[in-house]
This record gives sequence, C-alpha cells and structure tokens, in this order.
Amino acid sequence: MLDCLVNGEQTDQISIGDRGLNYGDGCFETIAVKSGAPLLWQRHMDRLFASCKMLGIGIDFDAGILAAEAEQVLEPKENAVLKIVVTRGTGGQGYRPDANTAATRIVSVHPWRLRPPEFRTDGIRLCVCETRLGRNPRLAGIKHLNRLEQVLARAEWQDEYEEGLMLDTDNQVIEGTMTNVFLQLGQEIITPSLENCGVNGVIRTEILEQLESMGITCKQATVSLDMIYNADGLFICNSLIGVWPVATIEQKKFPVTELTRKIQHGIESVIV
Amino acid sequence: MLDCLVNGEQTDQISIGDRGLNYGDGCFETIAVKSGAPLLWQRHMDRLFASCKMLGIGIDFDAGILAAEAEQVLEPKENAVLKIVVTRGTGGQGYRPDANTAATRIVSVHPWRLRPPEFRTDGIRLCVCETRLGRNPRLAGIKHLNRLEQVLARAEWQDEYEEGLMLDTDNQVIEGTMTNVFLQLGQEIITPSLENCGVNGVIRTEILEQLESMGITCKQATVSLDMIYNADGLFICNSLIGVWPVATIEQKKFPVTELTRKIQHGIESVIV
Repeated sequence: MLDCLVNGEQTDQISIGDRGLNYGDGCFETIAVKSGAPLLWQRHMDRLFASCKMLGIGIDFDAGILAAEAEQVLEPKENAVLKIVVTRGTGGQGYRPDANTAATRIVSVHPWRLRPPEFRTDGIRLCVCETRLGRNPRLAGIKHLNRLEQVLARAEWQDEYEEGLMLDTDNQVIEGTMTNVFLQLGQEIITPSLENCGVNGVIRTEILEQLESMGITCKQATVSLDMIYNADGLFICNSLIGVWPVATIEQKKFPVTELTRKIQHGIESVIV
Repeated sequence: MLDCLVNGEQTDQISIGDRGLNYGDGCFETIAVKSGAPLLWQRHMDRLFASCKMLGIGIDFDAGILAAEAEQVLEPKENAVLKIVVTRGTGGQGYRPDANTAATRIVSVHPWRLRPPEFRTDGIRLCVCETRLGRNPRLAGIKHLNRLEQVLARAEWQDEYEEGLMLDTDNQVIEGTMTNVFLQLGQEIITPSLENCGVNGVIRTEILEQLESMGITCKQATVSLDMIYNADGLFICNSLIGVWPVATIEQKKFPVTELTRKIQHGIESVIV
C-alpha cells in the first residue's frame, strides 16, 4: 500500500466499530490508474453512488471530493490501482442503521500488477468453481462488501488457472470471481443476466454500450454451462485487465474470435 | 465501547487492508456477559472455531487465548456484551486468500442493553421483512461477516416492532434479523431448517438439546408464512435476549403458550 486517506485524513486504520468490517455494510470500486489518471472515472463514480443509493447509505461527499482525494494519494505518471471503499460508517445499533451516521470513505492506492501479455493475446485458463453464488435480486449488480462467495471460490485453485467461472445456486452461469463473462454464439454475443446475482462491472457496461453503437446484438440472458461449452468464443473482462479471451475451460479449448478481438480493441481504446 | 483488543494489543483500530472490511471475510460471536462472566462460552467457542474451519480461516490461537483476552477487557461483576470477530487477516491478493496469513481477532466489550421486561413476559411485536435471504448451502448456518441482508431488513422499520421475520428468496421462513424462530403446532415444536441460509444460533442449539432431553419433539423443517400465521404459539431467541414470545405479527395476535414459557425458563436457567 502506497498511500491512504480515510475521510480525508491520512491513515491506514479504521475503527473496529465500522459497519464495513462488522457487516460488510458498504460497497467499493477498484479503478485502473494509468500515468496518474484514473480510467473510466465517471462510470466508476456512477456505479459507486448508485450502489450507495441501493443500499440506503447516505453520503455527505460527492465525486469531486473523491477526485481530489484520489489526486492527493496518486503519484503523477504512475500506473496503479485506486481502491475506493464506502461504508455506512460506525453508527447504528446492531444491524439497525442510523440515518444520521456519516458514511466512511477510504481512498487507497495499490501497486499496479503486471500480467503476462499472452493473457490478452492468446487467452487465459478458466476453471469452473464449486462455490455457488446465492440469488438475491435485492443485492444483484451491486459491488458491495459481502464477498465471501468470491473468496471461497478463489480459494479453490492456486496458479493453474487465471480465473474461475461461478454459477449460481440454480446452476446458471453468472460471472468470474473477479470478472464478467461474455460468450459468442455465431455472430451473437451473450452475457449472463445479473437479475439475481453478480456484479455489474464497469467494463461490462462499457462493452454493452460499444456493442450497441456498433450495431451488434448482445443479449443479457440465462446462460447454462452447456451454452458456455458450446460457445464459438468466450472472454472475460474487468477494469484492471480489460478483455481477456478464454483459451481453455479445464480440458476444452476455445479459439480467439475476430469479434472478441474487436471488442478487446474497443475496450483498450478507453482504458489503455 | 469500553475496551478492545486486536490480536492482543489494546487498540480500537484495524488496518484498512483487513479482509474482514474488504470482503466480510470472517465470522463473529456476540456473547452475553453477566457479573463479569461470559455465558455459554463453550458453545460460542465451538461455533466460532467451526465457522473458521468452514470458511478455511487458519487460526493460530485457541479458546484459552480468547478467554484470557475476554477477562482482560471485562470488568469484574459487570453486565456487558462481549463481541469477538475473527477475520482472515490482511494477506492475499484480491479475493485470493493466502494460507500463511495470520487471522485477525478482535475482542471488544459493549454496554449491556436493558430491554423492557414485558418483552419476555408478554411478548414482542414481529413484522415480516420485504428483504429476502439468498440461499447458499456453502454459507448456511455460519455467523459470518456478510450481513447486508440483515442490515437492509432491519432498516425496514424503526421502533414499531421489536424484530422482523426474514424469508428466503423461495419464500420460506428462516429466522429473525437477529434471532432464530420457533413455532408450536399442537404439542410439536418446529424451527426452520438452516440448510440453505440462516444463522445457527447458540440458543437455538441449546433449545434443541433441552427439548430432546425433555422428550419433546422438535422438527427442523421447511416453514411457510402460512404455518407461522397458523401457529399455536411462536417465540424468538438469541444469546442476548434469551427467549421472547411473539405477541403479534403485524395485526395477528398469538398467545404465550405453556410450552413457550417452559422453554423460556429452561434457557434462563443457563443464561441469567
């Protein structure tokens, strides 16, 4: 960790009474920083404030404050990861929130992690996780702090795969542990619906908009593991990695399609 | 907060890198303390260490260490609430845990909250929450730190009810936001199965054992809201309140049955 602000004060500590710790009562953003500039800033801010609203977390700061704090912790010209966590603060009694509690905001910088370039050129190895995602429309889409399912899923493998595919408890494919997933069937692109669970990724939203402007149909639908195995092509995405084609799911191989490459380049035009 | 130890050190702060904050990656116990003595200590320790095991959290301390730390923070003869939080610590990379990370343990004391005596004599007012519990057998029963559903459920009312009943996404009754629930149908006692979700409460376990030793059948079963409304009697329980009969669910009234009173006295013999 390079630098950190909690509610604007330079510290890397928070109160053990914070609801983020006690209940996972908050949400977060993980933002790629290139040459000192946070990428897709507006999209991250839109999601963060939308998430707070969906969780009923009252905030007394705006994106301008967060931008100023990001500038304060980031070195000019560095590549880094900026993490912003917003929790419901320290108030309330047990689970009961207090509407007057001030939210806690944590702005911290973490080292940029270099990934092997072949992940983006040749694709990555995907496994299928045993750990399932519970379904709850009330929390679906939100990048909240209740991430035990992702932690348990990621604990299922070490370095033999780059990412793990997560199904929900009804055996529908939803996402990777840290990525969204898209599949190609013919000239159609499909990504799992996030109606019941899953994180509404910033790059997912960007891809959906780019596809629309290119006139390419992308369905948000129920996706089975069978559909995944029968896909003509497959890729995963998030804010830090951009788009990585999937080369294999366990033994099964997938080609990197032209359409995947086109979408990858579209994303790289906004994040690299 | 009266006093607090983090990994044995007197502080009420933890690192913003702690996985408990970032992912809700941990579990906790809330323990009643009467006259300086934590009640049902062994049951709490059993559940805490079982929860850590189910989450794959490696711990380098035992119940003896926690007992010594509890003694250190508690005043002799006080009534209080002892909270113990165990997280997977600060290590790992993103969701990926590091098997060598030392867990974080937080032992803190909170004021005992006096409740109106009529809650235990006449019963409490229960509402039915809109917020649902997602189903995930992998996490069911564990008192983990992913508690957003309980927070959102508790935010649905203010002081007009004492507790809210939570259903899962399949509309099965599971528990209260902070309690387990039991219903009486004739001379039979039923409590919702925790196969898919819900917290396996220490008092719930104590009641199940006491009922067995009294020769009273208690089924752990699928419970619908209809069964609840048609119950002859109903009660809720947790470590801090013991057993409270349910007097009303919104407009519907329930009597306090003899059997509820008997179970209440059985619990009070071990916690008051």
